[in-house]
Amino acid sequence: MRIAVLGTGAVGRNVGGRLAELGHEVTLGTRDPEATRAREDYEEVPGAGLATFADAARDADLVVNATNGGATLAVLALAGAETLAGKVLVDLSNPLDFSRGMPPTLLVKDTDSLAEQVQRAYPDTRVVKTLNTMNNALMVHPETLAGGDHTTFVAGDDAEAKAKVSGLLAELGHRDVLDLGDLTGARGVEMILPLWVRLMGTLGTPHFQFKVVR
Amino acid sequence: MRIAVLGTGAVGRNVGGRLAELGHEVTLGTRDPEATRAREDYEEVPGAGLATFADAARDADLVVNATNGGATLAVLALAGAETLAGKVLVDLSNPLDFSRGMPPTLLVKDTDSLAEQVQRAYPDTRVVKTLNTMNNALMVHPETLAGGDHTTFVAGDDAEAKAKVSGLLAELGHRDVLDLGDLTGARGVEMILPLWVRLMGTLGTPHFQFKVVR
Repeated sequence: MRIAVLGTGAVGRNVGGRLAELGHEVTLGTRDPEATRAREDYEEVPGAGLATFADAARDADLVVNATNGGATLAVLALAGAETLAGKVLVDLSNPLDFSRGMPPTLLVKDTDSLAEQVQRAYPDTRVVKTLNTMNNALMVHPETLAGGDHTTFVAGDDAEAKAKVSGLLAELGHRDVLDLGDLTGARGVEMILPLWVRLMGTLGTPHFQFKVVR
Repeated sequence: MRIAVLGTGAVGRNVGGRLAELGHEVTLGTRDPEATRAREDYEEVPGAGLATFADAARDADLVVNATNGGATLAVLALAGAETLAGKVLVDLSNPLDFSRGMPPTLLVKDTDSLAEQVQRAYPDTRVVKTLNTMNNALMVHPETLAGGDHTTFVAGDDAEAKAKVSGLLAELGHRDVLDLGDLTGARGVEMILPLWVRLMGTLGTPHFQFKVVR
């Protein structure tokens, strides 16, 4: 599949790199590729291209939003509504606000979610929320924790888009994919972040995950 | 232990009944015992007494708040600050607001929690948040789901109070008690409720639980 991964932070590089390893044609999207390459902490992702958000998204079958939540709407505006129209958009982001220090608060919650904001802004794009409840190392290698015996949530309004994303999750090794129904299910998985952040502090590691025992 | 369980709904009756079975001296607290006994749906809880909130709490070593979140502060006011002073208060409640229909929203979130509101209102009481992330049947019989292989969170400012509550949780059969630290940890466990409510709808049962795989 041709996949655009928007964002060149740890999440974007890890997810893009693993999808390229799995044989997908991956392009990472960034604001300014030259500036990104010039960043001291930037490492090329083997097998993946680098382009502007719009160029990366243009030819993609599927777009992954791996930007941070506070930047998501601005980044998608740079990709452009026409470019995103008809495409599946996998939203991994969390609407965390670090501006008031730690722990972060949520920019949107309770009666709305970032995923729904994105869907309303891009009604012709098919948004699927997933993977935001775990560290990026577990997104791409779930088998490294308890052999993958933990739960991955998906939510979205388009059944075909969710099936496509669930297929990709299976390729990544996600064994327990739990469909929460329509995109309003994103509220609950975004609101789990305060507990996630707390657990990371308590456990002293981001290498943990939620399992819905049932 | 002498335990007061405030609330005569399903949570209070289940928790009070099980603690009585385990040999504790339990009194359920209610606004008006005569009115409660006259309720068509009210069944006596074997082994447990019934008294006003204040009378139930007065002689207790430990008080369990099993009222709904919207009523919690009003109920505790009826018990009274002097009565509650020095006592361990186990807070099982969730600040759910059903007034705008389903799904419920949260009365408090993100930068505060109901447990912290209670602690601020009763600074001489030792509040411990726990058990609010599961159905009341699992609170008292965790072994009925996956042999009890799921996680029970605790949060509170007083280490001795948390140890006392953890002992009680062990008596109830909770095998994986995860201490989130001080009472600000209640924010995360209260904010998990939107996901819990969603999962109840998706799975068609409240008989599920979260496990922190680590």
